[in-house]
Amino acid sequence: MINKRLESLRQQMTNYQLDAVIIPSSDPHQSEYVAKHWKVREYFTGFTGSAGVLVLNQNEAALWTDSRYFLQFEDECKDYDLNLHKQTIPHAPEHVQWLCDSLEEEAVIGVDFFQFSKAQIDYIKEVSHSKKIKLKNIPNLVDEIWKDRPTLPSFPVDIHPLEYSGETTASKIEKVQNKIETAKADYYLFSSLDEIAWLFNIRSKDVDFTPLVTSYALVGLEKTIIFCDRNRFSPSAIKAFSKLAIEVLNYDLAISELQKLDVNKKIITDLSSLNYAVFNAIQSKFLFQNSIARELKAIKNEIEINGSKNCMVKDGVALTKFFIWLENELASREISEYEIGKKLESFRQQQDLYTGESFAAIVGYKGNGAIIHYTAPKEGSAMVKNENILLVDSGAQYKDGTTDITRTVWLGGTPTEELKTAYTSVLKGYIALEQLQFPKGTVGMQIDAFARFHLWQQGLDYPHGTGHGIGSYGMVHEPPQGFTTNPATSSGRTAHSINQLTTIEPGCYKKGVFGIRIENIVLSIAKQETEYGEFIGFTPITLCPIDRKLIDKTLLTTTEIEWYNSYHKMVFDQLSPMLKTNEKEWLKRMCEAL
Amino acid sequence: MINKRLESLRQQMTNYQLDAVIIPSSDPHQSEYVAKHWKVREYFTGFTGSAGVLVLNQNEAALWTDSRYFLQFEDECKDYDLNLHKQTIPHAPEHVQWLCDSLEEEAVIGVDFFQFSKAQIDYIKEVSHSKKIKLKNIPNLVDEIWKDRPTLPSFPVDIHPLEYSGETTASKIEKVQNKIETAKADYYLFSSLDEIAWLFNIRSKDVDFTPLVTSYALVGLEKTIIFCDRNRFSPSAIKAFSKLAIEVLNYDLAISELQKLDVNKKIITDLSSLNYAVFNAIQSKFLFQNSIARELKAIKNEIEINGSKNCMVKDGVALTKFFIWLENELASREISEYEIGKKLESFRQQQDLYTGESFAAIVGYKGNGAIIHYTAPKEGSAMVKNENILLVDSGAQYKDGTTDITRTVWLGGTPTEELKTAYTSVLKGYIALEQLQFPKGTVGMQIDAFARFHLWQQGLDYPHGTGHGIGSYGMVHEPPQGFTTNPATSSGRTAHSINQLTTIEPGCYKKGVFGIRIENIVLSIAKQETEYGEFIGFTPITLCPIDRKLIDKTLLTTTEIEWYNSYHKMVFDQLSPMLKTNEKEWLKRMCEAL
Repeated sequence: MINKRLESLRQQMTNYQLDAVIIPSSDPHQSEYVAKHWKVREYFTGFTGSAGVLVLNQNEAALWTDSRYFLQFEDECKDYDLNLHKQTIPHAPEHVQWLCDSLEEEAVIGVDFFQFSKAQIDYIKEVSHSKKIKLKNIPNLVDEIWKDRPTLPSFPVDIHPLEYSGETTASKIEKVQNKIETAKADYYLFSSLDEIAWLFNIRSKDVDFTPLVTSYALVGLEKTIIFCDRNRFSPSAIKAFSKLAIEVLNYDLAISELQKLDVNKKIITDLSSLNYAVFNAIQSKFLFQNSIARELKAIKNEIEINGSKNCMVKDGVALTKFFIWLENELASREISEYEIGKKLESFRQQQDLYTGESFAAIVGYKGNGAIIHYTAPKEGSAMVKNENILLVDSGAQYKDGTTDITRTVWLGGTPTEELKTAYTSVLKGYIALEQLQFPKGTVGMQIDAFARFHLWQQGLDYPHGTGHGIGSYGMVHEPPQGFTTNPATSSGRTAHSINQLTTIEPGCYKKGVFGIRIENIVLSIAKQETEYGEFIGFTPITLCPIDRKLIDKTLLTTTEIEWYNSYHKMVFDQLSPMLKTNEKEWLKRMCEAL
Repeated sequence: MINKRLESLRQQMTNYQLDAVIIPSSDPHQSEYVAKHWKVREYFTGFTGSAGVLVLNQNEAALWTDSRYFLQFEDECKDYDLNLHKQTIPHAPEHVQWLCDSLEEEAVIGVDFFQFSKAQIDYIKEVSHSKKIKLKNIPNLVDEIWKDRPTLPSFPVDIHPLEYSGETTASKIEKVQNKIETAKADYYLFSSLDEIAWLFNIRSKDVDFTPLVTSYALVGLEKTIIFCDRNRFSPSAIKAFSKLAIEVLNYDLAISELQKLDVNKKIITDLSSLNYAVFNAIQSKFLFQNSIARELKAIKNEIEINGSKNCMVKDGVALTKFFIWLENELASREISEYEIGKKLESFRQQQDLYTGESFAAIVGYKGNGAIIHYTAPKEGSAMVKNENILLVDSGAQYKDGTTDITRTVWLGGTPTEELKTAYTSVLKGYIALEQLQFPKGTVGMQIDAFARFHLWQQGLDYPHGTGHGIGSYGMVHEPPQGFTTNPATSSGRTAHSINQLTTIEPGCYKKGVFGIRIENIVLSIAKQETEYGEFIGFTPITLCPIDRKLIDKTLLTTTEIEWYNSYHKMVFDQLSPMLKTNEKEWLKRMCEAL
């Protein structure tokens, strides 16, 4: 079937006189998770990984993705006429140079401008310039093959109330307007869905795992427009917006309305998220800046922080019940990874204000834990026994916050020394970064390696960043801050500020044998102010025991043991009031001092 | 006098109808140390710091420099009509935005294109664009005021022999030509003096502290040109070059010759070092790349590494004799910082192949040690007694290598706990980074903080990078690799590779009280290869005891004490054969196990 789709695509290339086609994974908003309508690359390749680009030239169909997905590609695409091309850096557009090298002078590449950011098209033009290669915008190219392509989402839009958001839309809009005035501009154009959701306190279920609303937004000094189908809002919402001088116009009017803007007006926007189709339509002058919404949103207000802490209790209770269930069930039967994931979801569903998972849970038994973005298939996932190692990375969306946690547990038998050393080194790395005190202004790339130090000294490492920002009933991976080795990402270059929420999640993976990852969400806090400046640090808010069966205590320092004991005292103190007697006893055992 | 010069400059602004003038510290090659001819900013400000830009508008004369020089500015310029503007990031062009903000629309800024790189002019144009501010190139602006401006250097050029360079010019040129062919280009244009010195194995004394030759070089596939006054070369050198198809043309012919190049030819060059005057003159197409010479030069060959190690013995012997002299002299008299610096130089002068200092030695007593780039004045420098703390940062040029070392010593009395804790923390930071093992591909910015960790935990820090590459009878600060908190510099973004030479030099400074810095040169070495990749680390090559009188041994781990003892065993073993009996005894005491 996939081969047939690729063949139809080749036929379209001939019809449109194209020498190549680039089909990315993105929607017009550069979203992490995209609506089914935009899953074009998945449709043509069968590859379901979140990152990856299909590039077709005359000779081959090439799927470019990064190391997180190499095993998944082999698994999903081995039977198709598709070649895997390995990106050395995640999200880097390495396929562009490759494609241009493979083409003749004056070749033509077909693309859908909606699926590319302005920055991406600029890059393709730069690389292709010397060979006079042309880009041709063909939005309908795939529609003629994909007959049953899903329509755009049209779910009702909910207003995210002040008791969870902690700040009114009026207040947020005012901050954006101040920015417009400071920059002597006229408008601020937003195209990133999570920024729009934050700015207008709106939520819906257009995409998997994230409560976002398909839309654009143009904030002006007098008037603001949300481009989103009007019939998705309640009349009272439309009325409330109207009082704030916010008009709601249908999504498909965005381009035509933006084209009407005066040529002499100045529009601030974020180069990295604006799609090229919209950019191309607008005649006014652009001022490119990092999005103010992104920066403001990353600093959580008191209500958001309290909401997140509340979610950690709910998540911790669900995980406690889940791990007790798992222990009991495994005593009498084998359970599939898939069933384990579903069961975990069911415990979270019982929690107050739960709306769904924040990403596809990763339940990886033994060697499956080494596949970084593994998803257990519904049919035929591995059967978990009461022995060996299990990695569980999961999270939820609650109306008062978003969660993301990884625990790696030992289910029975005797772990190898190699495994215990690796697990203990990962734990030491987690503690090192979480306990670090660093000067204000320090960016993610400067401190990421503290979580790797103990692994590096043994010739070990992990092929992913150490952590990412997280939203408040928003995106589970929320820029800009984080920890990474990659200087090209915002999480490498962004300074950590107090009141941000970020994950710390070092790991260690041995192909075919085990995957280890320990992940908590931490809150950035002020630590100390001296004549050398302000110093910042972190405090953990995730509440769930870290399995002691894999810890080699002789490798821990006194300080690390003290950290372990004090963290587990906090976990027990905060979760136990919500638990039944038998659950409380189980948790007490898990939280005993080392 | 300075005020009068500034006044004349203002007069010139009126004559040339300029609204502002930017006068940087640079020469046409973006050199760190510049020939007297190019010390324009120093002439107009009296400020002798190596970094700083003078910006004149209608209202003020502003000197922009970074934190290393704030105290020096106050010291040197307090009597002039000059305002200090503090850069938050060293070398960042923060004055450009400030200047443009201060000017009216369509204002005119006067500059000398020779003193600005292509990248710098691009940046000024970008920032000034929205106000339609114009740049006017006026190379003679200052000549009309600076009547006795020194001429360009014309010292004889020496050929750097194979026994020190370890690679022939023919071999280096071939590597450049391969690069030209790979890039399908026609020429490689070099304008960075240390790259040209390396490429052609030539040395001279055009600038202070670095054996460079004022020149440009154009490497072609058939023919190569060095633009440097012919009469500076011996006839045999000219002949030898001629056999390699290398022509020597006078320096002032560079622009007119480069203008003759065919419009259709492609020239590879380094955007960051090419000056705008040359860029502007050339009609051919440019391909901007990181300089291949810079990358090749950073990886030292075996002969260069052995030469550097040899220099460490010579430097270590000189420093041993110097510290013994200092101890003896201080027992009976006070000595000025200036005299101490001169005496240290005299001990190095006695060493084989010595040609000069590699930078102006920093001899800072007590609070003077806290002035990061302090230079003791000839007259009236502080008198050093046999008590309290002295920081000595110095280095030399030998024909077989370049050195750079900092030691901080306690001269007598009882150090405070604060001082001992700070000193021990700096030492711990040095050891941490030097002993670190990290994966291939790791860049300076990812690991710089390991040297800061122990300071950060106490609310301390230091306002400079942790280390820089160093040349082989070349620049003491040699890009690209190093350790820094600044993502905008090459030392932040460059991966460390084996066989590079780099300094590690953490510090701690308390204004008016003390300065602490410990600096060794380390060689990058292969450490381990595992299924997770290749791992790299460092080994120290500098040979000089680290003063134990300031160490609080209770703060050191067993591993750190072992490091200290093994390093000092190496220092003693390698230096003692070159010393007299009494010197050997002194060194033995200094190198005893902790």
